[in-house]
Amino acid sequence: MEHFVTMKDKTETEILQLVRRAHHISQKGVNPLQEQYFAANLFFEPSTRTKMSFVVAERKLGIEPLDFMTDVSSVTKGESIYDTAKTFESIGANFIVLRHQQENIANQLAESLSIPVINAGDGTGEHPTQSLLDLVTIYQEFKQFSGLKVVIAGDIKHSRVARSNAIALSTLGCEVYLTGKDEWHDESLPYHYVSMDEAIEIADVLMLLRIQHERHQDQFNLYQESYLEKYGLTVEREANMKKHAIILHPAPVNRGVEIDTKLVECERSRIFKQMKNGVVARMAVIETLLNQGGNFNEENFNKRQANIG
Amino acid sequence: MEHFVTMKDKTETEILQLVRRAHHISQKGVNPLQEQYFAANLFFEPSTRTKMSFVVAERKLGIEPLDFMTDVSSVTKGESIYDTAKTFESIGANFIVLRHQQENIANQLAESLSIPVINAGDGTGEHPTQSLLDLVTIYQEFKQFSGLKVVIAGDIKHSRVARSNAIALSTLGCEVYLTGKDEWHDESLPYHYVSMDEAIEIADVLMLLRIQHERHQDQFNLYQESYLEKYGLTVEREANMKKHAIILHPAPVNRGVEIDTKLVECERSRIFKQMKNGVVARMAVIETLLNQGGNFNEENFNKRQANIG
Amino acid sequence: MEHFVTMKDKTETEILQLVRRAHHISQKGVNPLQEQYFAANLFFEPSTRTKMSFVVAERKLGIEPLDFMTDVSSVTKGESIYDTAKTFESIGANFIVLRHQQENIANQLAESLSIPVINAGDGTGEHPTQSLLDLVTIYQEFKQFSGLKVVIAGDIKHSRVARSNAIALSTLGCEVYLTGKDEWHDESLPYHYVSMDEAIEIADVLMLLRIQHERHQDQFNLYQESYLEKYGLTVEREANMKKHAIILHPAPVNRGVEIDTKLVECERSRIFKQMKNGVVARMAVIETLLNQGGNFNEENFNKRQANIG
Repeated sequence: MEHFVTMKDKTETEILQLVRRAHHISQKGVNPLQEQYFAANLFFEPSTRTKMSFVVAERKLGIEPLDFMTDVSSVTKGESIYDTAKTFESIGANFIVLRHQQENIANQLAESLSIPVINAGDGTGEHPTQSLLDLVTIYQEFKQFSGLKVVIAGDIKHSRVARSNAIALSTLGCEVYLTGKDEWHDESLPYHYVSMDEAIEIADVLMLLRIQHERHQDQFNLYQESYLEKYGLTVEREANMKKHAIILHPAPVNRGVEIDTKLVECERSRIFKQMKNGVVARMAVIETLLNQGGNFNEENFNKRQANIG
Repeated sequence: MEHFVTMKDKTETEILQLVRRAHHISQKGVNPLQEQYFAANLFFEPSTRTKMSFVVAERKLGIEPLDFMTDVSSVTKGESIYDTAKTFESIGANFIVLRHQQENIANQLAESLSIPVINAGDGTGEHPTQSLLDLVTIYQEFKQFSGLKVVIAGDIKHSRVARSNAIALSTLGCEVYLTGKDEWHDESLPYHYVSMDEAIEIADVLMLLRIQHERHQDQFNLYQESYLEKYGLTVEREANMKKHAIILHPAPVNRGVEIDTKLVECERSRIFKQMKNGVVARMAVIETLLNQGGNFNEENFNKRQANIG
Repeated sequence: MEHFVTMKDKTETEILQLVRRAHHISQKGVNPLQEQYFAANLFFEPSTRTKMSFVVAERKLGIEPLDFMTDVSSVTKGESIYDTAKTFESIGANFIVLRHQQENIANQLAESLSIPVINAGDGTGEHPTQSLLDLVTIYQEFKQFSGLKVVIAGDIKHSRVARSNAIALSTLGCEVYLTGKDEWHDESLPYHYVSMDEAIEIADVLMLLRIQHERHQDQFNLYQESYLEKYGLTVEREANMKKHAIILHPAPVNRGVEIDTKLVECERSRIFKQMKNGVVARMAVIETLLNQGGNFNEENFNKRQANIG
């Protein structure tokens, strides 16, 4: 694995290894890397959660984060993202974490740099580390993926989280269903659409998406139209879920829109556990990229493995 | 001590222990903690001094600071501060440092999180770590508090520094006096008001407050009205202070307003010493919260104590 | 060496020592300092490249960076830069790195603080660490400076990079030439002006300057007027350069303005190597300031020297 920019090119084995490694780290911890590494965290879109999660993952591995502060206006052309990334490569960054509003930009960067690139969200493209943390959370619950019914609910069309998850869950043998307002369907995804009420009945995992106000014109109406009652997870719907079913949401939650505020921390909610898993998922990705890429150091790797026990 | 959000609930013994511990650290230093801790520094109001002081305190203890960048506009409801703080708790923060424009918010957060909360200034509420560093500075000068006459001078009504200090100084047995423009008196505080000229005569400690332009409409007039001559510390007034009396100011100083520029670094000014003490005061608070809260690790604590000697 | 604010007061020996030390670090690496140091990185003007380069240099030396976030508007008087810097000194910074729009400000600060000050660019004044990294890059190519012909090309008048380099290169015995639009000549610099086509023929080192849009009114016209063809490095001109001649540019490059995009990573371009050298150049400066200033610790210094081998 040279880069981590999409779930499309990952095999079942690759994904499972990352999931298990992340779970292992969550149970046993991990020792910091022996050598000094630098991470370039290039966030061209606002992010607290993902960014901080990467920083914690990096520091737990002993990696130095380099934080790039940008107002979006100072960087307007793909070319200069290349120059920025190349600068970080030149001053010693060992890998790039990129969040950017432009789809496919992480891919393009990966092709032109000699260090690994991690996609931390590219427009409406993909968000593979978010998917990985969702997978870790599902794995911890069910210990397997094959045959699990997962419903992804909400604004499928604009959601990079939906895209990465649909791909990865299928690769792992889950049955993927989608639900949401008609105009948010994405016909390019080969999955079956169901109503929210059907979703409630069949889901082992109900994966709610965040409505991304910043990508819509009509956010105000969402509240007016009783989005929650029509498409969201109400207290009534939650009562009809399968006994063992769990709720996921990538957060930040729009409380009272995608989900009733009372349910955010309910028994079947794994929302804050997902955040916790975000750290170990990112540690697994970084570790894998640094060890199997050009920077692999067998001696340190073995030392660490021994220490983890 | 589970949280450090107000001076109101602190006993004389608790305060004295923190003061002595901070002074001890200033003399002998301290070893970094053996385990890896993360601090969530959530500053919703601008701050250079307090924030940097916390960062230095954290790094001297070997703690990793997580810096939350916010433009105030992105967070408008108390509810989402909860979600933000809970996110940091989930991704591994061991304590929260909170500066926010809303009074009592640190208190509310402390009640709903399972990790310690430190109030780094909540609106016009309290600023207990600023008070603690003032106490350390006074302690280093006089080695005791009982009977000391302390005058707090300036915009009492809007000052969280005044509030925390008045409470703590009283708890420690000081005689507290207040002085300032009539409209800045705070009738809820049970202390005696004096004129600036009386203040000069009686004070062992003259604690000037910063005029917080950002909380007033009438800042421009302050210069016009000769604030310095009427209410500030002029060269003439300083000459009339008791021989051993010292000057404190939480900074940043409005030079020529609260105090004559010539006096900022005069012999009895402890203004830059206060900043220095800000670091050790915060170290004492953090150390106490981590050791006496859920994260207490006796072995490491003893090791550190031994190393400090 | 107490401060590093200008190339004017540096002797040939001092500069050569820094160049050689930086080159040595680039070849052999360096161990982190044994004691904990703090760096105050005070950037009052935007900077990604220089700032990140300092952060990497600091972390490679084991130094903790303290990052000062400022919107320029909050600090408008020289006096308060003093107060800010003095605050960082008080809370434990061991040296200051200052970028500021005002010429000579680093000098003034150096005179009033007791810790070393590094000038990371002061208005149109100087940028001595940028010069140092250029010198390291030249040294790695030619192993000597005496008699080398260096042409500095572009907006000489507004360029702090030009100023620091012209001074340092002369001190080292290079022949310095300047080229650029007539209105950008700086008559205070005692060097010979040539045309761009003459420059191409004589240069061993062609040092292109960045056109600093932010200091001009007429940036739009630069593109209209075919700046590249008249004053920049075209593919045609590059073909006429001496066989061994190299191209430098402090970056960020305005692609297609100072230099044809095709040439940015051409064989004789050292642009990304310069960035790499920026880290070791800054390490050499910091190390020198900390060891020869008040913080010199012979035992640690010897330990480090031994470890470098």
